[in-house]
Amino acid sequence: MNGTHKNEDKIKHTSVTLEEERSNSRFSLVDMDIFINGKNKVNLRERSLAVIRGRPEIFDTSSFYYKGRVSKIDHCLSVEKYLITLLRNKTIDAAEMSTILSILDTPSPFDLTRGAFIPTLIQQCNEEQKKAFLKPALEYKIIGCYAQTELGHGSNVRGLETTATYLEETDEIEIISPTLTSTKWWIGSLGISATHACVMAQLYVKGKHIGLFPIIVPIRSQINHELLPGVIAGDIGPKMGYNTVDNGFLSLNKVKVPRFNLLQRFISLNRNGVITRPKNIDNRATYSTMVYIRANIASGLGSQLAKGITIAVRYTSVRRQFGDQNKQETQVLDYPIVQYRVIPILAKTYAMLGMSHEFFAQYENTVQKINQGDFSMLKEMHAVSCGLKRWSSETAVYGVDTCRHVCGGHGFSMFSGLNEFFSNIYPNIIWEGDNYVLAKQISSYLVKSAFSIKNGQKIVSNDTTRMLAKFIDPENAVNESIRYSWHGMPARTVSASKEILLDVLGYRFVSMTNVLYEKIYGDKMSWEDASIFSQCVATAHSEYIVCLYFSRHLGKLAPESNLLEVLNSLFSVTALSFLLRDTAELYRFFEERASIDRNMIVGFESEYISLIRSVRLQAVPLVDALGVPDEKLNSSLGRYDGYVYEDYVKRAMDDPINSSGSGEVTRKKFYDEYIQPVLNGGKL
Amino acid sequence: MNGTHKNEDKIKHTSVTLEEERSNSRFSLVDMDIFINGKNKVNLRERSLAVIRGRPEIFDTSSFYYKGRVSKIDHCLSVEKYLITLLRNKTIDAAEMSTILSILDTPSPFDLTRGAFIPTLIQQCNEEQKKAFLKPALEYKIIGCYAQTELGHGSNVRGLETTATYLEETDEIEIISPTLTSTKWWIGSLGISATHACVMAQLYVKGKHIGLFPIIVPIRSQINHELLPGVIAGDIGPKMGYNTVDNGFLSLNKVKVPRFNLLQRFISLNRNGVITRPKNIDNRATYSTMVYIRANIASGLGSQLAKGITIAVRYTSVRRQFGDQNKQETQVLDYPIVQYRVIPILAKTYAMLGMSHEFFAQYENTVQKINQGDFSMLKEMHAVSCGLKRWSSETAVYGVDTCRHVCGGHGFSMFSGLNEFFSNIYPNIIWEGDNYVLAKQISSYLVKSAFSIKNGQKIVSNDTTRMLAKFIDPENAVNESIRYSWHGMPARTVSASKEILLDVLGYRFVSMTNVLYEKIYGDKMSWEDASIFSQCVATAHSEYIVCLYFSRHLGKLAPESNLLEVLNSLFSVTALSFLLRDTAELYRFFEERASIDRNMIVGFESEYISLIRSVRLQAVPLVDALGVPDEKLNSSLGRYDGYVYEDYVKRAMDDPINSSGSGEVTRKKFYDEYIQPVLNGGKL
Repeated sequence: MNGTHKNEDKIKHTSVTLEEERSNSRFSLVDMDIFINGKNKVNLRERSLAVIRGRPEIFDTSSFYYKGRVSKIDHCLSVEKYLITLLRNKTIDAAEMSTILSILDTPSPFDLTRGAFIPTLIQQCNEEQKKAFLKPALEYKIIGCYAQTELGHGSNVRGLETTATYLEETDEIEIISPTLTSTKWWIGSLGISATHACVMAQLYVKGKHIGLFPIIVPIRSQINHELLPGVIAGDIGPKMGYNTVDNGFLSLNKVKVPRFNLLQRFISLNRNGVITRPKNIDNRATYSTMVYIRANIASGLGSQLAKGITIAVRYTSVRRQFGDQNKQETQVLDYPIVQYRVIPILAKTYAMLGMSHEFFAQYENTVQKINQGDFSMLKEMHAVSCGLKRWSSETAVYGVDTCRHVCGGHGFSMFSGLNEFFSNIYPNIIWEGDNYVLAKQISSYLVKSAFSIKNGQKIVSNDTTRMLAKFIDPENAVNESIRYSWHGMPARTVSASKEILLDVLGYRFVSMTNVLYEKIYGDKMSWEDASIFSQCVATAHSEYIVCLYFSRHLGKLAPESNLLEVLNSLFSVTALSFLLRDTAELYRFFEERASIDRNMIVGFESEYISLIRSVRLQAVPLVDALGVPDEKLNSSLGRYDGYVYEDYVKRAMDDPINSSGSGEVTRKKFYDEYIQPVLNGGKL
Repeated sequence: MNGTHKNEDKIKHTSVTLEEERSNSRFSLVDMDIFINGKNKVNLRERSLAVIRGRPEIFDTSSFYYKGRVSKIDHCLSVEKYLITLLRNKTIDAAEMSTILSILDTPSPFDLTRGAFIPTLIQQCNEEQKKAFLKPALEYKIIGCYAQTELGHGSNVRGLETTATYLEETDEIEIISPTLTSTKWWIGSLGISATHACVMAQLYVKGKHIGLFPIIVPIRSQINHELLPGVIAGDIGPKMGYNTVDNGFLSLNKVKVPRFNLLQRFISLNRNGVITRPKNIDNRATYSTMVYIRANIASGLGSQLAKGITIAVRYTSVRRQFGDQNKQETQVLDYPIVQYRVIPILAKTYAMLGMSHEFFAQYENTVQKINQGDFSMLKEMHAVSCGLKRWSSETAVYGVDTCRHVCGGHGFSMFSGLNEFFSNIYPNIIWEGDNYVLAKQISSYLVKSAFSIKNGQKIVSNDTTRMLAKFIDPENAVNESIRYSWHGMPARTVSASKEILLDVLGYRFVSMTNVLYEKIYGDKMSWEDASIFSQCVATAHSEYIVCLYFSRHLGKLAPESNLLEVLNSLFSVTALSFLLRDTAELYRFFEERASIDRNMIVGFESEYISLIRSVRLQAVPLVDALGVPDEKLNSSLGRYDGYVYEDYVKRAMDDPINSSGSGEVTRKKFYDEYIQPVLNGGKL
């Protein structure tokens, strides 16, 4: 504000409190960062930050919160142009570009040419088409979009209405949007940027419906960027978030393209309209792409939750409210009810990042086997990937929401950094399979595996089926005390043991799978009706996998590592938060002898709370080790240096409404036109 | 799009589907509207809509989603000015003005002069001060704000740092903001509009700290609206929502006001600095104001949830996805997993609106007794009001979030009407007592009441203590079969009986209170440590009260009313959703003989699902009967007429980015400056 302000001596400055919190660290920050993010990511981050910090005038987003949509897009396009220049002169590579964009944390208009158009070309082009389309796309000589979703069809891809008809006379394909609802909608990079669209359309040849295939359609002139004849396209308008991306609509009125533009890796259409399918192509391989996309979502959301929890932990550490009248007020993070909401999110952030390493490793393993013709890992990997996308997005989106809520009123300010951010990550619960729809994929895999095991069929051994077999295979000779390893154990022993916790989590999903199995095969319930119960079955399975993968990542540490103590606590907090999410799931274990009684549950609750309390002591170093730079936080509340209120006030003062230039004009207009007539109206 | 589009014959138009849904109604829509909203509100709505529809050019908000903050505030101020003119020439009264603003559903810059400044003046002015401050405020000759919250203190009001010192020499009070954190912050109507602030400050007289009191401080010139000397004020910048309100900051540097400006209803400060407290003033009466504010929040949020659920039910009814290939695709609302998420919100909307009538009635009862010097109802009423504010805000905010999610991708578009809306109602979980903090007020009332009952102390009989006494009073002679009325009953009987459901809900909060009682009085746990468990105790109590009040409102209907059948189902869905929220609460009932076993819980689950299925059939008429006009919905997806996609496409086409005027200029700039250099860069 002004010179009249002083900090009273007895009140510790927020920056001092943060320094004190940092001194509680009992582990090496650098080692932790490398362990949880991976050496490669840490190096990329450092190189990328150097680029950003070298040209703040280009990258700075601190004024973003005041801006309207058009000027935000303007900023993003200027960043794109600059980065593409750096890319072309080889100052940066593609990985650095992607890291820079992820630090800036603002979705960018060309994101979908990179994230959807190019990957489709890689997957679906033949060699000639790669030269014609992929090469210029990689060089940004064309900008593309992937036009699948329509106004009337999202999840149900088979229901898409756009048609593509082969015209034998002219050797062309004619594309038509026959109805209003067939308008392509939500297509990223289409609204303003794209020169080309990869249009998913129902292919008709000789009057016969062939199926859904991708066709490259030029939509804007390469000369002046005007829409080409027959093309109606534009921006679909403002959204909850993602407003810096030009999601667009596209309607095609008898637009003709050469036959060559039908992407031909999985289909071949010759001059005479004869369809052939190339040999040596296994459709199942496309599933592995979906797995890869979902692994990326899960890992990316780990980094996003890291941002949210960094802001929440730092701010609740320095915010003080209530407490003993003669002392300083209490740090908000010292209140049990705040710890209880914050620390499990911190633990899950570590779990999400930690398990992602193992998730990618499993993916690579799967692809390697597929390349050798072995598809045995694919089914479980697909179910796991659906589950982890679902768990990660739910956890990250509502985790960030909780981070905002614990920041109190100030969390509601845009300067908290948590609001546009929340809106931008929100669609993760919907895209790449809506979370509620995905649950069925997982539970159906589980129930079918259970069926095979129960009926003595041969089954691929993997993380999921091993746990199923351990508990439901009638042939399984394992000793019961090994099966139910938690039996008779004190809650403290269970809570401290990764092996036993994994057993309980494993048995929980097996038990719930068994109940669902009974509904489907016993009660003959339809899968639709079972969809409600499927949700928690899928969640229980994912929670097991998260802990299993996380524990494997922890297993890479040497026993004497100073990281291990706190990581083990984070593991236990994660596992217990899963078990305590709905304890009725424990009361309802399907076998009496496996069941967990009220005493053990009460014991878990008390272990959980004391673990939370112990982790809280190192909460600030733990978020520091996540390595989220201030440029990504873009938050007054979460600043590394702890100058929370100074930065917050500065940002408020900088609001254009308060400025002496344009702000004065705005305020004068408001006064002259509205406020003054109201105030003086009484005197009329 | 254009003329090439046609709807294929086999696909039913969305508007036709909605008409068919409407024909399922088995009750009178008009009667239902009056019953659930109240005759008075229905009349007010009709008169207010006539005003709005008479001048669409003034009120229309359909272009709001494209606008920046400044132009939105401009629109709101012009509406304020127009409405104040109507008010002055008596075309509308205050109730109509408030209804019009609630239909427009956009927070308005003067909302806080009406909602906080004026109510404080009514409560805290003496008669002379009413003439000086209240009268001009009511006439909009001054615009005020209520300046309590500071940058550093929100919940802990006692910690406020602003000082007000009585200067005997000049008979003035000097107000100082001594620190950065003492800056008043979040103050609605302050950023741009207010001429006066009611400043809450620590009063010092003769060097002695007297306490926290409100002082009226002129902050902007009555002549030109410039800030007065010593005043630093402005707008606090953009927020998650509420951006049409000018929440502001205020720092006072030795600003002097006459002693008269100290509001003197609860304190009197004379010329010689002598403090007296007026007789016949009971501080407890101020609690009843808080009760009233919270009753208004609960009732207002009922109307807001009505908006959310109207959009969700109408859109999921007309949206079709998947299903039998030879038929039309399935309406999304016909999927069990969608019904399961949507219908309970519909039921809770009815419960929230229904119980609000009883809540206000209880409030009036309480005030009437207080006016006769009887404060006996106040304590429970206060606890109930904390709980219902907490329950209503949690239910409405996350209910709207679910409404958005079930709309799929299109829910993420601003044109869904659910996004700015979600952001605007969000702070209800934080203001007027953060929901997590409020839980303690409720649970502490419960535990103390339990203590009195267990120790044979005399206690006021009310809804809460009667239920506590029924189950824990050792002297209670009631027969056990009456106490545990659900025992031995089939789940279907319990689910269909309001009395038995209320008994289970009642026993549940009593049981949980008992556990908390043991922690506090038995284990000597601190209230802070107990704050985690307090949350669910408070929730269980509120859920009982919601159902109790709702059932009383239902009790006003004649037994032959055609409204009753579906309302009874909505009651059961609400009650069962509460019981099934966390069934571990039922497994853990503290008395074995009271407990509910797995079979009964499974029975509840199956009753719940079949009730949901039955309510779904009348879901569209049920949202119609909530009477939310299209002007309030401002939603393509929720339109009454069902022209969902036409309206959606029109709004997208209308986005200024797509226009041929300014949009062309914007797009050309993007192309010339960024896109073209990128596309051509490869050729350099």
